[in-house]
Amino acid sequence: MASANDEEILSNLRKSVKEQGDLVRKLKEDKAPENDVEIAIKELKARKKALEKKEKEIAPQDESFDRGKLEDLLKRRFFFVPAFEIYGGVAGLYDYGPAGCAMESNVINLWKKHFILEEHMLEIRAALLTPHPVLKASGHVDRFADVMVKDVKTGDCYRADHLLEGHLEKLMADKKLPEDKRNEYQSVLNKIDNYNMQELGELIKKYDAKATTTGNDLSDPVEFNLMFTTSIGPSGIIPGFLRPETAQGIFVNFKRLLEANNGRLPFASAQIGPAFRNEISPRSGLLRVREFMLAEIEHFVDPTDKSHPRFPEVESLKVTLFPSDYQMDGRPAMQITLGDAIQQKMISSTTVAYFLGRIYLFLIKCGVDPSKLRFRQHMSNEMAHYACDCWDAELCTSYGWIECVGCADRACYDLCQHTNATGEKLVAQVDLPEPVKVDVVEVVPDKAILGKAFKKQAKEVMEKLTTLDSKGAKQLEDALNEKGEFAMTVDDQQLLIQKAMVKEIKRYQKDVHVRDVEPHVIEPSFGIGRIIYSVLEHNFKIREGDEQRTWLSLPPVIAPVKCSVLPLSKNKEFSPFVKELSSALTEMDISHKVDDSSGSIGRRYARTDEIAIPFGITVDFDTVNKEPHTATLRERNTTRQIRAEVSLLPQLVRDLVHGKITWSEVETKFGLFEGQTTGSM
Amino acid sequence: MASANDEEILSNLRKSVKEQGDLVRKLKEDKAPENDVEIAIKELKARKKALEKKEKEIAPQDESFDRGKLEDLLKRRFFFVPAFEIYGGVAGLYDYGPAGCAMESNVINLWKKHFILEEHMLEIRAALLTPHPVLKASGHVDRFADVMVKDVKTGDCYRADHLLEGHLEKLMADKKLPEDKRNEYQSVLNKIDNYNMQELGELIKKYDAKATTTGNDLSDPVEFNLMFTTSIGPSGIIPGFLRPETAQGIFVNFKRLLEANNGRLPFASAQIGPAFRNEISPRSGLLRVREFMLAEIEHFVDPTDKSHPRFPEVESLKVTLFPSDYQMDGRPAMQITLGDAIQQKMISSTTVAYFLGRIYLFLIKCGVDPSKLRFRQHMSNEMAHYACDCWDAELCTSYGWIECVGCADRACYDLCQHTNATGEKLVAQVDLPEPVKVDVVEVVPDKAILGKAFKKQAKEVMEKLTTLDSKGAKQLEDALNEKGEFAMTVDDQQLLIQKAMVKEIKRYQKDVHVRDVEPHVIEPSFGIGRIIYSVLEHNFKIREGDEQRTWLSLPPVIAPVKCSVLPLSKNKEFSPFVKELSSALTEMDISHKVDDSSGSIGRRYARTDEIAIPFGITVDFDTVNKEPHTATLRERNTTRQIRAEVSLLPQLVRDLVHGKITWSEVETKFGLFEGQTTGSM
Repeated sequence: MASANDEEILSNLRKSVKEQGDLVRKLKEDKAPENDVEIAIKELKARKKALEKKEKEIAPQDESFDRGKLEDLLKRRFFFVPAFEIYGGVAGLYDYGPAGCAMESNVINLWKKHFILEEHMLEIRAALLTPHPVLKASGHVDRFADVMVKDVKTGDCYRADHLLEGHLEKLMADKKLPEDKRNEYQSVLNKIDNYNMQELGELIKKYDAKATTTGNDLSDPVEFNLMFTTSIGPSGIIPGFLRPETAQGIFVNFKRLLEANNGRLPFASAQIGPAFRNEISPRSGLLRVREFMLAEIEHFVDPTDKSHPRFPEVESLKVTLFPSDYQMDGRPAMQITLGDAIQQKMISSTTVAYFLGRIYLFLIKCGVDPSKLRFRQHMSNEMAHYACDCWDAELCTSYGWIECVGCADRACYDLCQHTNATGEKLVAQVDLPEPVKVDVVEVVPDKAILGKAFKKQAKEVMEKLTTLDSKGAKQLEDALNEKGEFAMTVDDQQLLIQKAMVKEIKRYQKDVHVRDVEPHVIEPSFGIGRIIYSVLEHNFKIREGDEQRTWLSLPPVIAPVKCSVLPLSKNKEFSPFVKELSSALTEMDISHKVDDSSGSIGRRYARTDEIAIPFGITVDFDTVNKEPHTATLRERNTTRQIRAEVSLLPQLVRDLVHGKITWSEVETKFGLFEGQTTGSM
Repeated sequence: MASANDEEILSNLRKSVKEQGDLVRKLKEDKAPENDVEIAIKELKARKKALEKKEKEIAPQDESFDRGKLEDLLKRRFFFVPAFEIYGGVAGLYDYGPAGCAMESNVINLWKKHFILEEHMLEIRAALLTPHPVLKASGHVDRFADVMVKDVKTGDCYRADHLLEGHLEKLMADKKLPEDKRNEYQSVLNKIDNYNMQELGELIKKYDAKATTTGNDLSDPVEFNLMFTTSIGPSGIIPGFLRPETAQGIFVNFKRLLEANNGRLPFASAQIGPAFRNEISPRSGLLRVREFMLAEIEHFVDPTDKSHPRFPEVESLKVTLFPSDYQMDGRPAMQITLGDAIQQKMISSTTVAYFLGRIYLFLIKCGVDPSKLRFRQHMSNEMAHYACDCWDAELCTSYGWIECVGCADRACYDLCQHTNATGEKLVAQVDLPEPVKVDVVEVVPDKAILGKAFKKQAKEVMEKLTTLDSKGAKQLEDALNEKGEFAMTVDDQQLLIQKAMVKEIKRYQKDVHVRDVEPHVIEPSFGIGRIIYSVLEHNFKIREGDEQRTWLSLPPVIAPVKCSVLPLSKNKEFSPFVKELSSALTEMDISHKVDDSSGSIGRRYARTDEIAIPFGITVDFDTVNKEPHTATLRERNTTRQIRAEVSLLPQLVRDLVHGKITWSEVETKFGLFEGQTTGSM
């Protein structure tokens, strides 16, 4: 709980953020030099960071969470482990074991159902290898980089900001450090995300930072592009990259996708798959890795109409928003319905707001704790220069608030870049509400005369004449009338068009029913690994009274395995029932695990709880000896049990997993069972 | 049909294969020099190829298949297209559009259900980026290569065998070519897959082949490793590759997987994901690409027991086998049950046979034409040197018989290689049928004396003394008895063990219940893209009497979209029914497509047939005007229709898609409907 003193500190920090926010606004209004604005924004961010740090400090701590214990469970039960462990591992690469792989599949399948199937999105799977020109056009070749410094002797590389951060934190660990120095270092740390290459280099020199492992001197900072490079084909002449995101695969296929949607806007395309980022020094487990699973949606809209017809379905959802204004003013995030947020113009369009709502619903289904989910709006200087509005779904973890989903209105940037690079027009046609009359000028050439005069070039001359716009046609007409001829460049050659070559120049009006638009795109982009890790943190529990019994409360739809089947002991009489249950569950596509290892039933339940199996069927002596044959069914969260006929149990589990019946309904129907719990009979 | 003349030619070719096969067998029996055997095998393969060519020539042609038409459909309806088309494309890379992507997902989901869920396999998802040492150990760095020649002027690269093949085919196109030359060239072509680098170089010189596009001279042949190289991390000191197969990700995780299976054998692990192969000159569409989807199973067994408990479930399956003996004898493939094949020892174990059966069932479910599926056994010289038995599931396409699934018993090769490279023991323990008594020698050192004598090294000396095997203990005992001391190397240092340091040397017997085994692995490996392409060929149809109406008869489980919903026209009265149907289908997870574009209903049916939509619901005026509201349901293969209540239709489609009811049962229940077909009312 916050003390009165804390509240005062907080209030002062808020005030200082607001002052700086006001200054930034004023500078912008006054159209102050860009450099001044930039400096003011950096200071604003530093103040925001200090405020956030204090807020985090005094927030009620999640006492029960112990990251070490979670990490131990995840490794021991093979959710994921560092890749190539027996070869010493490679930083930033992870292998998903059976539990992690199944959980990931479940998240992806839920995503497909929630987004693709529900909204008839056009899913594609594009190549991972991407040639240089595509990523040059997208901006990745020039801008997808981090600043790095090298150990001058060993060549070891460090991310410059991480290194400086570590260095200052080490200095601050010295309790005898004078207060003014401490404040100075803290102020640098608060701005650590905002320094450019040159500034980082100067600070590293100023504070005399050295290579972390060796203490050697460091090189000047350089930019390091984060894409993995390779070469496609044997000749080495097609330089390529592993894609840094999936989105470009959609943009380059825009024309075919539009066609697959019968040429109509709006439509969305989606893609799920691996993307790559050659991190300089990966850290924070699954949160910053070199290979990661992305799920991205590109929703193409007519820029003059960014409303979404299904927005009413989510408008009454109450979510936590942290608009850029609030961040500038030092105010905390707020709870608000999406409908109100639209009315107050916090969110730029109902399409963006609709997706925020859908993202919210998806994350909750995945098992995210709603109190640890907020949508933070990018401040104008954080956004890519082309984006109009951008919100991050951030999940609160032991590493702080982590961006897990981005939702950006990228305007027409991407399609335009590819058009510029390739000359392909990536536009759509939208129906006009009513047809409009437009003036048409049509030059009618004399084919025969042109043919004789220009031979092979005649076709091109024809093409050029008939596609002249009204201005060009006017020039042609004037020239022919005045000089009797008109000079035109074809194939870098100047040709003269004679008056006889043009039969007539028609002018009339025609009805036009459609207009060309350069579609804008709204892009919700999901980091699946980050979501998975956050969900694991949000669902990591310890059984009351037993520190050692850790478990995961994942929702059944996400749990790696849905059901366990446990014979009470290795007694062979249990086998036919175990087989019957297993076959029936397989038949219903319910993933399950038969655990007939030795070990008490309680110990085996604990093992199934660790990998989040929500339901467990136990075959005991009553199953064998009494008719009708019954077995127990246990629910993970409550650890309560019921007893029902073996033949009914698979369907019951299926209904529970699919949410067609709740556990308390099951308890009501079958009655709580409290007989066999230890397995000793 | 084969004429008498053809039959005679065929019989002679068979005889010539058999003669050569007998020669190979004899040479092997006589332990003839390896080189002689190799030459004889090359000749055998050449004769086999000539035989196969003739067999293909006289086999009844699939007249209806037109590859150009299929390719047109696949591109036009966006199953898959060359990647980065608007940038000119990159050979060997494809993007899957909505239809192809959904079809691929369906194949993968079916695979997961058929193999992973059914058999409780441990699915993992390992990293794609793989460091050098892992692929050095697996053999890929040294052996995963093709032979290449370069245009000496432009540097253009060609696969040497493809280039020579093209050159000879061009020479043979000359009708005036003398018969002896023609035979000579043909004989080289028959052996084209078998030449080594040196031979290819000599042949290219001999026949004066030049660079295909420029006519320039060619370099000497070189080996080109087919892995894509990259560098992990910024320093460039971790060279890595994109994985050429998924299998290694399973092998390096063997210990954790074994643990996840409670330490028991047998068990299987599976992985689905992309793999990469930097083809020198990709061709044949999806059949030879640079990025491809693999689905691999590694089934680990005790080498002394390769029987499979579930083999009886598939033993009566009749499949087409083409054993290596038959290939050596020039005999055609044969139909046989898997049970008989095991009895006749054609297949090495019931585990391999079980998987062949499961592969067969899977491929048939995917829509493979069983008459175009055979299992061809590798001949001994084709197999990797470590494999004991290997069968390819080959599918017959317009490109010939294509290997789509491999099923190999790879013995203990992979695990041993990784053990050799890392020192990690990758073994399992299996229960002995009865405990056995073994002699144990236990050296009991005097801790206190050792500690004083060796200080820091004492622990290691202890470790070394207590783990001496019986031979080592004997030497120690003898040395202590004879000389009073024993020399031992610890940390490259020779230490002397004094008699007083050893309290006693115990000898006794103990019961051992388990033994260590180096597991063997049986690997079914599926090329998903190749299966998809073959299935598309096997299911490509043209409606009788209309050359333009091409369609795909994919089984519902594989079809990209399960159902279409078509309002008869743009009339707004149809909308509520279309919406009702669409919501109900979404609720049931049935993917569907609403096509309310203009165009006659017949034209729209044709469009849905092109992307294999098996069922179509049409909302017409009777739907709107009569009660109860009914709509028509059309089946794609028969193009027949029934009429049923709108509220019943979604469930009906669901049952049809899941195979719970057949179309003929539906016809019987609702009666054939022949009213609205053209849509004009």
